[in-house]
Amino acid sequence: MAIGEVLRDHGDDLRTEQLAAVIEAAIDCAAHCAACADACLEEGDTALTRCIRADLDCADICAATAKVVARAGASGAPWLELVRVCAQACANCAEECEQHAEHHDHCRACAEACRRCEAACRELLDAVG
Amino acid sequence: MAIGEVLRDHGDDLRTEQLAAVIEAAIDCAAHCAACADACLEEGDTALTRCIRADLDCADICAATAKVVARAGASGAPWLELVRVCAQACANCAEECEQHAEHHDHCRACAEACRRCEAACRELLDAVG
Amino acid sequence: MAIGEVLRDHGDDLRTEQLAAVIEAAIDCAAHCAACADACLEEGDTALTRCIRADLDCADICAATAKVVARAGASGAPWLELVRVCAQACANCAEECEQHAEHHDHCRACAEACRRCEAACRELLDAVG
Amino acid sequence: MAIGEVLRDHGDDLRTEQLAAVIEAAIDCAAHCAACADACLEEGDTALTRCIRADLDCADICAATAKVVARAGASGAPWLELVRVCAQACANCAEECEQHAEHHDHCRACAEACRRCEAACRELLDAVG
Repeated sequence: MAIGEVLRDHGDDLRTEQLAAVIEAAIDCAAHCAACADACLEEGDTALTRCIRADLDCADICAATAKVVARAGASGAPWLELVRVCAQACANCAEECEQHAEHHDHCRACAEACRRCEAACRELLDAVG
Repeated sequence: MAIGEVLRDHGDDLRTEQLAAVIEAAIDCAAHCAACADACLEEGDTALTRCIRADLDCADICAATAKVVARAGASGAPWLELVRVCAQACANCAEECEQHAEHHDHCRACAEACRRCEAACRELLDAVG
Repeated sequence: MAIGEVLRDHGDDLRTEQLAAVIEAAIDCAAHCAACADACLEEGDTALTRCIRADLDCADICAATAKVVARAGASGAPWLELVRVCAQACANCAEECEQHAEHHDHCRACAEACRRCEAACRELLDAVG
Repeated sequence: MAIGEVLRDHGDDLRTEQLAAVIEAAIDCAAHCAACADACLEEGDTALTRCIRADLDCADICAATAKVVARAGASGAPWLELVRVCAQACANCAEECEQHAEHHDHCRACAEACRRCEAACRELLDAVG
C-alpha cells in the first residue's frame, strides 16, 4: 500500500506523508474494528457489549475520516476537527479492547490498530494544526 | 420513516425524538450530497469543484454520524463532538451549494437538506450538551 | 425528503422516480438496521446474534447501494448487480427480524424498512433490467 | 496490518487467509479510489468525469465489501454475490484508470490497487464458491 502516490500534491512531502499515514491507519483500524466486533459477538458474552459498540463507533468514524482526509480540507469542511474526533474514538476503543486483550486475541490486535491510528491522527494534528 | 420506533430506550421521549431527528436528517443529507456531487460532475464546470468536494465530505460525515448517533454514546466514543463536526460540515456544504442555487436545482435542494441536518444537530447538542 | 430533485436527468421521469425510491428506501433501511443492531445488543440475548449480523450486513450494503444508485451506472460499474444483492440482503434481514417481531418492536419496524427497500430495488430492476 | 489475527475462526486457516486478503485489498482499494477521485477532480479535465465516478462507485463497494466479508456470511446475507460485484467494480475502475495511467500517476497507482482487489476477490470466490 502506498497511498501517498495517489494523493494529489498537498504542498510539501512531509504533509503528504502524514495524510497518507492517517488514511492507511484509519482504514486498517476500521477493518480491525469490524472484525473485532464480529469476533466479540461470536463470544456470546454480554460483558463485551460495550466493546462491540466501541468497535462499531470507531469503525464508522475511521472509515469517514480516511475519505475526508483524502480531500484534506479543500472543501472547507472541518476535517481537522474530524481527525481529532477520530483520535478520541480510537483511544476509547483501544481502552475498551485492552481490558479484554488478555483473554481475546482479537481485542489485543484491535487495540493495537486503534493505537496506531490514534498516533497517526495526533501526528497530523501536531504538524498541521 | 419512523426511526424513533427502532431506537432502544434512551431515557426519555424527548431525547429519543431528537436522536431520531438527527439520524433521519443526516441520512437524508448524505443522499442529497451524493446525488448533488454527481449532478455537479455532470455539469462539467470546474467552478463546481469545491462544491463537489464539500458534497463528498458532507456525505461521508453525515453517514457516519447517523450510525454513531444510533448508538448514542453508549460506547464512550466522542459522539457529541462528531455531531458538532457534522453540523459544521453541513453548514459548509450549504454555503457552497447556496452560491450555485440560482443556477442549479440540485444545489438548491442539497443546501436545504444540509440546513435541515445542521438544525437537527444543533437541537440535539442544545438538549444533551 | 425529495431526492428526485437532486438527481441529474436520467432520461425519463419514471426512471428518475425509481432511482429516487431506491435511494430513499436504502438509506432509511440502513438507519433502521443500525438502530436495530444496537437495540438487539441491548437485549443481551445470544439468540439475537444472527439478527445483529444481518442488520450490520444489510446496513453496509444499503448504504453503499444508495450512493452507487445516485450515479446510476454512469461509471460502468455493476450497479444493477449491486441493487440485486441489496434486495437479497434486505430480504434476508427481514426474515431474521420477522422471527423476533412479536417480542421486539425494533425488529418489527426494521423488518418493515427492509421489505420496503427490497420492494423498491425489485421495482427498479423490473423497470431497467 | 494483520487482519487475519482479528477474524474469528472460520473453520480452516486457508479460508481465514483468503478472507483477510480480501478485507485488506478492499480497504486499500477504497482508499486509493477516494484519493484518485480527488486528484482527478484537481486536474479540472472533463475527460476524467467517468473515471471519477468509477473511483467513487468502486470506493463505496469496496468499503462495504470489506465490512461484510469480516462477517463472512454468518448472517445469511448474499456475501459472495457482493464479493463478485466488488471484483467487477474493481475491474471496471481499473480499466478506466488504465486509460489515464500514462498521464496521471494517481490513476496508475489506483489501477494497480483495483487489480489487486479484483484478484483477491476472485481467489476467495474460487476457494469458497
